[in-house]
Amino acid sequence: MSDSSALERFYSVIPAGGIGSRLWPLSRADAPKFLHDLTGAGKTLLRGTWDRLEPLNGDQRIMVVTGRAHRAAVEAQLPALADHNVVLESEPKDSTAAIGLAAAILEHREPGVIIGSFAADHVITDARGFRRAVVEAIAAADAGYIATIGISPTDPAIGFGYIHCGGRLDIAGAPSAFAVDTFVEKPNLDVARGYLAAGDYLWNGGMFISRADVLLKQLGEAEPELLEGLLELAADWDTTRRGATVDRVWPRLRKIAIDYTVAEPAAKAGRLAVIPGDFDWDDVGDFAAIGKLHSSGRANNLAILGDNPRILSDASTGVVISHSKRLISLIGVEDIVVVDTPDALLVTTTANAQRVKSVVDALKLAGSGDVL
Amino acid sequence: MSDSSALERFYSVIPAGGIGSRLWPLSRADAPKFLHDLTGAGKTLLRGTWDRLEPLNGDQRIMVVTGRAHRAAVEAQLPALADHNVVLESEPKDSTAAIGLAAAILEHREPGVIIGSFAADHVITDARGFRRAVVEAIAAADAGYIATIGISPTDPAIGFGYIHCGGRLDIAGAPSAFAVDTFVEKPNLDVARGYLAAGDYLWNGGMFISRADVLLKQLGEAEPELLEGLLELAADWDTTRRGATVDRVWPRLRKIAIDYTVAEPAAKAGRLAVIPGDFDWDDVGDFAAIGKLHSSGRANNLAILGDNPRILSDASTGVVISHSKRLISLIGVEDIVVVDTPDALLVTTTANAQRVKSVVDALKLAGSGDVL
Repeated sequence: MSDSSALERFYSVIPAGGIGSRLWPLSRADAPKFLHDLTGAGKTLLRGTWDRLEPLNGDQRIMVVTGRAHRAAVEAQLPALADHNVVLESEPKDSTAAIGLAAAILEHREPGVIIGSFAADHVITDARGFRRAVVEAIAAADAGYIATIGISPTDPAIGFGYIHCGGRLDIAGAPSAFAVDTFVEKPNLDVARGYLAAGDYLWNGGMFISRADVLLKQLGEAEPELLEGLLELAADWDTTRRGATVDRVWPRLRKIAIDYTVAEPAAKAGRLAVIPGDFDWDDVGDFAAIGKLHSSGRANNLAILGDNPRILSDASTGVVISHSKRLISLIGVEDIVVVDTPDALLVTTTANAQRVKSVVDALKLAGSGDVL
Repeated sequence: MSDSSALERFYSVIPAGGIGSRLWPLSRADAPKFLHDLTGAGKTLLRGTWDRLEPLNGDQRIMVVTGRAHRAAVEAQLPALADHNVVLESEPKDSTAAIGLAAAILEHREPGVIIGSFAADHVITDARGFRRAVVEAIAAADAGYIATIGISPTDPAIGFGYIHCGGRLDIAGAPSAFAVDTFVEKPNLDVARGYLAAGDYLWNGGMFISRADVLLKQLGEAEPELLEGLLELAADWDTTRRGATVDRVWPRLRKIAIDYTVAEPAAKAGRLAVIPGDFDWDDVGDFAAIGKLHSSGRANNLAILGDNPRILSDASTGVVISHSKRLISLIGVEDIVVVDTPDALLVTTTANAQRVKSVVDALKLAGSGDVL
């Protein structure tokens, strides 16, 4: 098949599920990370994701998998999103179920479909560079690989997982594809520096492009029962039985990340290809990442997000996020993180940004769900 | 005259004027420092001052000089305060006018009165030690001196002015009195360490005890016009002409601190005596002082003031002040100062506490008076 016909069979899937606990109290159960404008671009991360994909697919071939509670907010953000492209989860079941259900529904509707899964809450500014990589990944998917896109690292980041490239692959239409040797977890700084120096490590952006049937087959090898449930759901999805089948099957599905059920086993089996991407990318995993995004390389910068016009800073650096009308005054605080919301205030530092999740966990245990 | 008769002629004056700009946004024009409970004692600083003095004077011989705007709040704090002991300023004119007016009124009412002036917003826990020193100061005043109380320094504080003691004085009833050599401004740390080592420096607590006529005479040497205005006001104070005379005279009075018009000239002229006080004392001049007050010598302490029950701290030290119901979460911030009020939030560090005033000044210039 030619590239153009593969592209015609391409369908984007946006799983929009994660709350983004490390961004509490900005991100909440009722205001998850993907519904925030974290870049100051004037649009939510979800909308930014849609806008990057739309030139590839057109607006009729983008599916969003999200929680029932977020349906209205998602549809408000994406007015062109077609009804049949909204997949609602009755409860979160992690990425294997979310992406697997989308794959199963689309394969059922359109055998031979190629799907690409792209997180709703990542930031990429160079949309053209992104799409160039996706087009190569589609070619690799058309050739039977499960393809991922790895981002060429620009610094020894310790907040991301890495992909170790194996040998170069010879795939028509995907000249820069490599085999994936292994996925590696978030490293410490020394290890990350080694990866950067070695030159054959890429950041794992969590994007997967594959023929739906190939992805489901791979998934079934690791999780046959989960696959069975997804196929059952897909068979009834576009029928009047959908509700009953969802109620029966969804609660029993195993909650597990696609990294373990598809990506790692496929890498071991030599079925995973990686396209190096030279575009900028960030998963904006914590407030330090937001600060970095907004600093644009400037030192001693204070990033201000939100529409609060009354923020006074004297010799202070870091991040302030506020949508309130309160006057916020910072004096001599460095690498500070201040997140000001109506019912919760967070004060920490960029160096402690990863620890925010532990506070959220503590609040859950303490029964303070009202602010989560 | 005997000590007991001097004590019978004693009258306390509490100037309750300063806003406490370094404690913004807690202290405000409409909620000045003296109306706050900064010690966690369950009462305002003003009330604490009253309670320290009342055993000396009884409640009929304590006068409060305050702004018209604070009358109701002051009277609510001090239900026993007699009407004729409330002196209202139509606009703030600094300490010479405030204390001088009280002196002039009291001297007019009761020639030979001895007055003591005590700030409304200082913290002293050892009230007995304080009163012992005041009793000696009254004896020195009765002997014709202007007396002050200097606090024996316990650390090389850089936030206070110091008094350098001269020779010992021989005053009946004031065995520990020294002459005052000089007043010195807030020193740097090296200089302060030198003062502490030298042993003949005391903190300037800003307390003055003197016969009213002696104080007024001293004042008149430096500021004859100001004295003339004060005598005019005092002559009409208890008459129906008070309002008209205030309107005519008060706005024209020079705005100047009593340190320059009375204390320093009296020290130069050898008329100033100092009683060393061994009691604890703090002017709670900034948020660092509040942190210190509440740490009670414990390291790594987070002082929490206010009635907000939802403050979570993880590896954080410093001061948090909040009367809101918002959840406040601190993670890994050291020596932090967080002051959370409905319309203004301050985030700084104890080391930057003195710089809060400059922000208040900037806000004034910027026309942000609504939060001051």
